[in-house]
Amino acid sequence: MSASERVCDLAEEQLLARIFPLLPTTDATLVGPGDDAAVISAPDGRFVVSTDVLVQDRHFIRDWSTGYDVGWRAAVQNLADIAAMGARPTSLVVSLVLPRTEEVHWVLELARGLAEACAPHGAGVVGGDLSSGDAIVVAVTVHGDLEGGAPVLRSGARPGDVVAHAGVLGRSAAGLDLLSGAEETTAYPDLVAAYLRPDPPIGSGARARLAGATAMLDVSDGLLRDGGRIARASGVVLDLDPLGLSSPRDLAALSAAGRALDVDPVRWVLTGGEDHGLLATFPAGADLPPEFRVVGRVLEATAERGPAVTVQGVVPDGDEGWDHFAGRGSRA
Amino acid sequence: MSASERVCDLAEEQLLARIFPLLPTTDATLVGPGDDAAVISAPDGRFVVSTDVLVQDRHFIRDWSTGYDVGWRAAVQNLADIAAMGARPTSLVVSLVLPRTEEVHWVLELARGLAEACAPHGAGVVGGDLSSGDAIVVAVTVHGDLEGGAPVLRSGARPGDVVAHAGVLGRSAAGLDLLSGAEETTAYPDLVAAYLRPDPPIGSGARARLAGATAMLDVSDGLLRDGGRIARASGVVLDLDPLGLSSPRDLAALSAAGRALDVDPVRWVLTGGEDHGLLATFPAGADLPPEFRVVGRVLEATAERGPAVTVQGVVPDGDEGWDHFAGRGSRA
Repeated sequence: MSASERVCDLAEEQLLARIFPLLPTTDATLVGPGDDAAVISAPDGRFVVSTDVLVQDRHFIRDWSTGYDVGWRAAVQNLADIAAMGARPTSLVVSLVLPRTEEVHWVLELARGLAEACAPHGAGVVGGDLSSGDAIVVAVTVHGDLEGGAPVLRSGARPGDVVAHAGVLGRSAAGLDLLSGAEETTAYPDLVAAYLRPDPPIGSGARARLAGATAMLDVSDGLLRDGGRIARASGVVLDLDPLGLSSPRDLAALSAAGRALDVDPVRWVLTGGEDHGLLATFPAGADLPPEFRVVGRVLEATAERGPAVTVQGVVPDGDEGWDHFAGRGSRA
Repeated sequence: MSASERVCDLAEEQLLARIFPLLPTTDATLVGPGDDAAVISAPDGRFVVSTDVLVQDRHFIRDWSTGYDVGWRAAVQNLADIAAMGARPTSLVVSLVLPRTEEVHWVLELARGLAEACAPHGAGVVGGDLSSGDAIVVAVTVHGDLEGGAPVLRSGARPGDVVAHAGVLGRSAAGLDLLSGAEETTAYPDLVAAYLRPDPPIGSGARARLAGATAMLDVSDGLLRDGGRIARASGVVLDLDPLGLSSPRDLAALSAAGRALDVDPVRWVLTGGEDHGLLATFPAGADLPPEFRVVGRVLEATAERGPAVTVQGVVPDGDEGWDHFAGRGSRA
């Protein structure tokens, strides 16, 4: 294979024959790729399913992200949705739209990124579809298993619960701002990597369920916006404590980048999306998995305020996160 | 809602709130849209899954297809993959990429087309994702239930089996050629509709399994090309009888359009894709579901010929069907 080989040089079946061997399989895969459909084991008589799409120039930019990065992110943001239900991922299918002039090498790197993001979590890539198109689109559907437990929904938070978060906050947004700005990015490789290849705590979803989590989601659009989703679904107030939001080490890295870009790092922590950490509520006194940090508590919604996210009792200025059609910073 | 309302006039959550009420739900949906993921019943401890993508200007053209048509086709071509495993569809998730200037009306029509294609088969639309992009992309993932039976693969055809087909052949290709040509299409509304809104026999998949089908797939890329897939996977020859391929009524409609376009209608029947009928093999003497027509028989592959599709013992001139990257008519 030469680096300049293009997908239009191959028939679809030839390209698939190059991709399939790169993809992880699992014991849950009863029939894998190559037939009209795959057959997957669902031992507890249910499966969890979610779908998420990445679009070139919307979710990634070719100059910044390698094929590996795009494959990794496509997998991870889907795996996080399964974790957010308290489930373990089992399998993914991928629809891939590619320009006919795309390099085969780039596509195989994407497959490798997908595979390496999935393999540690025991998830197989069991099927897919290819099409040509003007821009790259990666649409992933992911499935998971609840191991006989109840799914952790957004609607179960109750006054008195603690609010906790596993993963990082604001790092992906800081990395994106660094890449977008004129600033030299080499001083902040961890933040740039957090944007290009987020690494959320996928296994923490099932652990949170086992620890009694009452509500959970993954933070894809920003802590304030996603916290608001739990608040509204549960009819409660999530009151956050800024001191709990980031580890001292995280905050130090964000602060240095914030000074370089003249950005308040707290803004990244509160409104930055795409870290895909898990925001959950637990009954007071629950034995939290160690990767969860307590970041606030659940209060009753009041008649004058209604369900909301507050920071030390105050509704913050803006809850702006990402909205795909209205653009950054609009309010849903 | 005005006809000129655009998706960029709405926040993503507002658009979703318009779409969700249009989508069918089913008893198999334990948790529906609105959380991080859906939870679906899989009563026999397995599920069948397939994914298929439609891309604007590749799989449909805005001037020909309404939103309803696109939603319908996106659903049907996926449902056919589940049927082709001998399963019954239970649920779909949909990733939708839309230009920000797209009319909201068009999107809601797409949802209605999806819904009406799914509802008769008991399949719910249980989740999705929206993104902006320059061209419309509809990526559907569909799930099905095998009711405790074995999946019908492509690899199970045995010499002595009969080859049978349920659905129509060549009508979608004829409709596409009519739309593509200068010819007046109003004389052939059924053929044009067969392209815009194919209506394959989804329920026949499970019936074929119950009748003992040994191999099956849906004809998406043309009878010769898809038949070749069964032949290669099973290591056999599929010998087709042209007299069995179309009903007299079907052939009359194709012949009239063929005369108008100067196309041999047999070419549509043998190489036209996207009708999504079911091509299956059954043991000789099996009691076929009545919608299946016998179209040939399975023979031993010979040393000199190998697995192939033949028509009355002769390898046809070309097996050209659709290839997404190389374009129409290339050989995979």
